[in-house]
Amino acid sequence: MKKEYQKFTNTLRKISDINHAISLLGWDKEVNMPKKGAAFRSQQVATLSAISHEMFVDPQFIKEVSELLKNKKKFKLKERKNIELIAKRQERSSKLSTDFVIRNSNIISEAYHKWLEARAAKDYSIFKDSLKKLVDIKKEECEIVGYKDHPYEALLDQYEPGAKVADLDILFADVKAQLIKFCKKIDEQKQVDDSCLKKHFPKEKQWDFGLEILKRMGYDFDAGRQDISPHPFTTNFAPTDVRVTTRIDEKNFGSMTWSCIHEGGHALYEQGLPSEDYGLPSGRAVSLGIHESQSRLWENNVGRSLPFWEANMSLVKKYFPKNLKGVGPEKFFKAINKVSPSLIRVESDELYYHFHILIRYEIEKGLLEGTYSTDNLNEIWNEKYKEYLGVKVPNDTQGILQDIHWAYGSIGYFPTYSLGSFYAAQFYAQAKKEIRGLEKQIERGENEKLLEWLRKNIHQYGSVYSSEELCKKITGEGLNFKYFMKYARKKYKAVYDM
Amino acid sequence: MKKEYQKFTNTLRKISDINHAISLLGWDKEVNMPKKGAAFRSQQVATLSAISHEMFVDPQFIKEVSELLKNKKKFKLKERKNIELIAKRQERSSKLSTDFVIRNSNIISEAYHKWLEARAAKDYSIFKDSLKKLVDIKKEECEIVGYKDHPYEALLDQYEPGAKVADLDILFADVKAQLIKFCKKIDEQKQVDDSCLKKHFPKEKQWDFGLEILKRMGYDFDAGRQDISPHPFTTNFAPTDVRVTTRIDEKNFGSMTWSCIHEGGHALYEQGLPSEDYGLPSGRAVSLGIHESQSRLWENNVGRSLPFWEANMSLVKKYFPKNLKGVGPEKFFKAINKVSPSLIRVESDELYYHFHILIRYEIEKGLLEGTYSTDNLNEIWNEKYKEYLGVKVPNDTQGILQDIHWAYGSIGYFPTYSLGSFYAAQFYAQAKKEIRGLEKQIERGENEKLLEWLRKNIHQYGSVYSSEELCKKITGEGLNFKYFMKYARKKYKAVYDM
Repeated sequence: MKKEYQKFTNTLRKISDINHAISLLGWDKEVNMPKKGAAFRSQQVATLSAISHEMFVDPQFIKEVSELLKNKKKFKLKERKNIELIAKRQERSSKLSTDFVIRNSNIISEAYHKWLEARAAKDYSIFKDSLKKLVDIKKEECEIVGYKDHPYEALLDQYEPGAKVADLDILFADVKAQLIKFCKKIDEQKQVDDSCLKKHFPKEKQWDFGLEILKRMGYDFDAGRQDISPHPFTTNFAPTDVRVTTRIDEKNFGSMTWSCIHEGGHALYEQGLPSEDYGLPSGRAVSLGIHESQSRLWENNVGRSLPFWEANMSLVKKYFPKNLKGVGPEKFFKAINKVSPSLIRVESDELYYHFHILIRYEIEKGLLEGTYSTDNLNEIWNEKYKEYLGVKVPNDTQGILQDIHWAYGSIGYFPTYSLGSFYAAQFYAQAKKEIRGLEKQIERGENEKLLEWLRKNIHQYGSVYSSEELCKKITGEGLNFKYFMKYARKKYKAVYDM
Repeated sequence: MKKEYQKFTNTLRKISDINHAISLLGWDKEVNMPKKGAAFRSQQVATLSAISHEMFVDPQFIKEVSELLKNKKKFKLKERKNIELIAKRQERSSKLSTDFVIRNSNIISEAYHKWLEARAAKDYSIFKDSLKKLVDIKKEECEIVGYKDHPYEALLDQYEPGAKVADLDILFADVKAQLIKFCKKIDEQKQVDDSCLKKHFPKEKQWDFGLEILKRMGYDFDAGRQDISPHPFTTNFAPTDVRVTTRIDEKNFGSMTWSCIHEGGHALYEQGLPSEDYGLPSGRAVSLGIHESQSRLWENNVGRSLPFWEANMSLVKKYFPKNLKGVGPEKFFKAINKVSPSLIRVESDELYYHFHILIRYEIEKGLLEGTYSTDNLNEIWNEKYKEYLGVKVPNDTQGILQDIHWAYGSIGYFPTYSLGSFYAAQFYAQAKKEIRGLEKQIERGENEKLLEWLRKNIHQYGSVYSSEELCKKITGEGLNFKYFMKYARKKYKAVYDM
């Protein structure tokens, strides 16, 4: 079957070539494209997407894959996994008829435009009917695709393969039980002073500082680059060309810095995937949750730690001497870890963050179960924000309309953000066990050993192990929320002198 | 046949979507790509190129086109031309077997690497054998593709459809007879002083000045952008996204300025092509010669004219006040039009330039006819440079190895450079006749009427008229070298006070 497997990888590599060209069309759209280029660009993406899809579900290719699947026992783990994962994706794709795909795409397109309109008018009711159509077709999709215990799993599976509602229920119950209490306790403390982060930080200086930080993390600029875009993101055209973008707010030190480290973490994962497995599941990130664990680990566990700023205080002061006059690592560490409930997910601190996700999770599940209706979903939203975050939502744009995900047809995506942070805490705890003096290394600005550990334990495997398997392999147990709480308790005790 | 024609255009638009994605992969490679991205990028381009080619010569599509061709009389001019031109390209492509295409691609790949090696070693003998193979397969291609009077025409046709060796012979005989004499006369005059162009021109100032000049030419920055690349070029992903690149030499005012105006001229053509004919011959530039006529017209006929610098002297002085202190439009006009034989084509003035092309033309034709051998081609090259330009070639890198074209497999490309300048002179003479007070307008910085004229007479037609037809339609006669000589005589009389 060696020859057949070779043929299989060749086809996948070609499909990947097309998909990476699509990624470049997308990257360029955000970073470079002049405004009049939009219409033809969409058409070009649509054409390439159709070709890629046709190649992937080509009956001949499906037949070849199913032949390999029948013989999977003849292959070693990696090859077997590649065959199984492709067969699984093909099965899902084949179940969705062309008619369904077109209807879905039209509904998403309408939803996107209605969402833009609704945001501008700060009025959820404009988006409501589109969202209903979207939820309806997603329900349909769940039934077509199939699931074991809960329809939501059919959607989750696209982003976090194998994720179970039963597990997420436990996880978010823990979030509710433990994190709400912990945040209340923090709220009773004297608030930290973060005024040093709200001064004027010139654009060019921030840009140079961001590049320097990426270098110190171990990001390879010979295999990537950073640019500016309205919404920071990471994309890749191969493990040898992984690009990040950032944005700069001159009045807010955090905006660029955290996006830069966050995307840097994503990028280190992509740069660490095995080049020789380009186009294959074994050369691709395993899930969004694990991807997010890499960005969050660098952003929060490392980037918002005291040792990291012991190492980088002189650097940041070199760029912004006036703004940070008299601010030492400890004061800086406290400032960057201020906890305070906020309306907007992407502006949230790392604790309240999970209430944003919890709310999305409850709502998405409720919509699929039929316990929530799109009719008054903004009211439900606002009540939940009152309950979990204690904030009053002034309008729908700062409330239910804040994120693009639903308008892009993504339901089941949000939970991966919380999963990412929780995996990060669990991985980082393990890394500290295994790397002698890790925090001392970070304090000296030496991040190599940590990156090496991530490469060895996570990056090199691509999708060979599922999230769950990977977590067990690395830490000896499945995802456990206690690591996040342990990390949070230790850190915020120091931040708030509790 | 309306439905069949619709299907035909749909297929062509899809092929064009792929080709434009390839163009973006290429643009990005020159402008943005980190160095380690090269290998996968080449693979991605190869995959997309193969898909585009397969779609173009798909037997079903060929059948559909030939059906349309049979019914071509039922269509109006534009539709008919689209059918004919696609049928012609398909015929050429179908004649070349897969075996031939692979051999050709391998020979080119080898030639490119040998050329790089030979350049580094300044030694033609390293490139010699590869060039021989290349010439041999090009001869083979001519025989496969077919031609009427001369094998060279089979190659020329790819770049300048319909070009005849008999016509080029006459043209280059004129160049020899008239231009050599004229250049000799200029050589006898007192040389102009261009020292004001060789001072230190800071990078950022040049960049800003270049953007300003592009704007003044009428380049639409909402449908394009400028970037830096080692070799300036223009590319497009639609008429609504046409990009130029430039390079900056701080010690040479001309390097950026002329590349910027030159590429700007190409870009104005692309931005002026009809968007509704995207993907069709009627939406595509007719030939490289006509393309070059647009770049040369802006670069030389406009950009190196006295009126243009009457309009832009205050602008250039705003950016470089010290360097140009005491330099008025006339002095500047003389400096930028200094004529002096040079070794390197791309650094040549606009008169000696054509000897570089003449030599390539004679050599390419001679290679195909078998009168020249690749064995000692560098010696032949050096003799011709001695004879036509009066310069001694110090080494092969500054001689026969200077341009990439042959190493890219392009034989028959060079003549289009001269054709471009000659068309430009003829078109510009006509524009002056038809636009009242054109040079006065340019003197006032008003370039709109000229651009409008180019749009109306050239850009809007895409490939509906051949170069020859277009030239006759606009000027009442075919390409005539006398317009170039007339333009040159008038201009250089002023430059050299003859």
